[in-house]
Amino acid sequence: MDSMMMDMMSKDMMSMPDMATMDMSVLQACMDACSACEQACTVCSTQLMSCAPACMNCADMCNTMMRAMMRMQGMSPAVLMSMLDACIAMCQLCMDECMEHADHSEVCKMCAQSCQACMDACMAVKDMMMKTA
Amino acid sequence: MDSMMMDMMSKDMMSMPDMATMDMSVLQACMDACSACEQACTVCSTQLMSCAPACMNCADMCNTMMRAMMRMQGMSPAVLMSMLDACIAMCQLCMDECMEHADHSEVCKMCAQSCQACMDACMAVKDMMMKTA
Amino acid sequence: MDSMMMDMMSKDMMSMPDMATMDMSVLQACMDACSACEQACTVCSTQLMSCAPACMNCADMCNTMMRAMMRMQGMSPAVLMSMLDACIAMCQLCMDECMEHADHSEVCKMCAQSCQACMDACMAVKDMMMKTA
Amino acid sequence: MDSMMMDMMSKDMMSMPDMATMDMSVLQACMDACSACEQACTVCSTQLMSCAPACMNCADMCNTMMRAMMRMQGMSPAVLMSMLDACIAMCQLCMDECMEHADHSEVCKMCAQSCQACMDACMAVKDMMMKTA
Repeated sequence: MDSMMMDMMSKDMMSMPDMATMDMSVLQACMDACSACEQACTVCSTQLMSCAPACMNCADMCNTMMRAMMRMQGMSPAVLMSMLDACIAMCQLCMDECMEHADHSEVCKMCAQSCQACMDACMAVKDMMMKTA
Repeated sequence: MDSMMMDMMSKDMMSMPDMATMDMSVLQACMDACSACEQACTVCSTQLMSCAPACMNCADMCNTMMRAMMRMQGMSPAVLMSMLDACIAMCQLCMDECMEHADHSEVCKMCAQSCQACMDACMAVKDMMMKTA
Repeated sequence: MDSMMMDMMSKDMMSMPDMATMDMSVLQACMDACSACEQACTVCSTQLMSCAPACMNCADMCNTMMRAMMRMQGMSPAVLMSMLDACIAMCQLCMDECMEHADHSEVCKMCAQSCQACMDACMAVKDMMMKTA
Repeated sequence: MDSMMMDMMSKDMMSMPDMATMDMSVLQACMDACSACEQACTVCSTQLMSCAPACMNCADMCNTMMRAMMRMQGMSPAVLMSMLDACIAMCQLCMDECMEHADHSEVCKMCAQSCQACMDACMAVKDMMMKTA
């Protein structure tokens, strides 16, 4: 994500009482991980292996997660937490499905790694929120 | 949703051990409510009132929820449950935001009703899953 | 689509000089056909047959088309025309791919029919626009 | 976009007769520009200025465009061309709307720049396709 865009989002967040204490760099890392995961899942789904439906679900969930973090004006900490849980659960399932083919398919291996990275980034947002709450 | 499509999805679900016992009519009602809520939120967001960012978030979450229920091959009961919780939380927030304008805006009133209906339909799926689990 | 929502969109359109002459029932039929096509394509893609990537592309294009018609405040006749052409081209390709399996797969047959209906509905919008231009 | 993922997509494209001659670096630049434009438009739409509906439309079109280029197995040169035209038209409209506020809003200025970059990248894909056709 562009640093100028991040600066602007940061200023917006400052004016939201519930969100003001969030560390923007943690959010930025999460949005970037969601975007990368959506892309990896989209490519992986075209292989038409058994993981494909999970990849399609994960691509949509990651895009919805990323956009929600870009529209914090229409979020609350509780909804954000609930969506992060759903995104983590979806990434875990997609990773598990892709790991079954990771030995034969480089794309599945890459997709599983993107899912793991997205889960980690979502958990980092959760950790930050629980510390500052 | 088309009844022929529903019959086909029903046959697919029968072959998924985790999903076999689900009542398709409850799922169908939920997918239809998600679709209606996505549409109401999309229209409501064009009013550019303070609820708009919540409406945009809710439209995306409802579409992701609907698609996930159409791709149960890439879901598990645990992920479905987590996504339903996120969708319910998002619809609740959007409804609360729109209710603040419901007296002045018929669109906000309609959007709030769609959010309520979507929440109810998601909760009905959760209830069904907990009974059959 | 809900008739109350359609009435509200109709009132909004009246205030847009470029869009004021459009017949809302033609637009409504198109939005409904886009929604039905997105759903059919989403289900069809889970079969993991060779049509699946086209179905995924078509589902996304139909959703984007439907939403754009719900947000005419952010459209112009020229952009709408260009998007309708893209949606028609995508539906045609998806229909062709699904027709190759229509004898063996009821889902592909249904998906092809939804694509045909969506193309027809998009063309009806184009025809209306050219008549009123 | 990840270079490993790009290598894999490149190998897939080689096996598609219609797509084999495409320069992957031009496609990669276009997918990255679509992703950046979706993000800028999503942020810009939260300002609830008059450009917001165009920004929402543009965000969806850019995401659909990016995903379609990641799923070339479900595309044809003609459909790709038609979708590029729609994406260019949508970015142009969004840029025009945002430019009206570019003096007062840094976010609109950034969004307009992302739209311009996305248009340029889409036109570069069109140019490449016309040269190799």
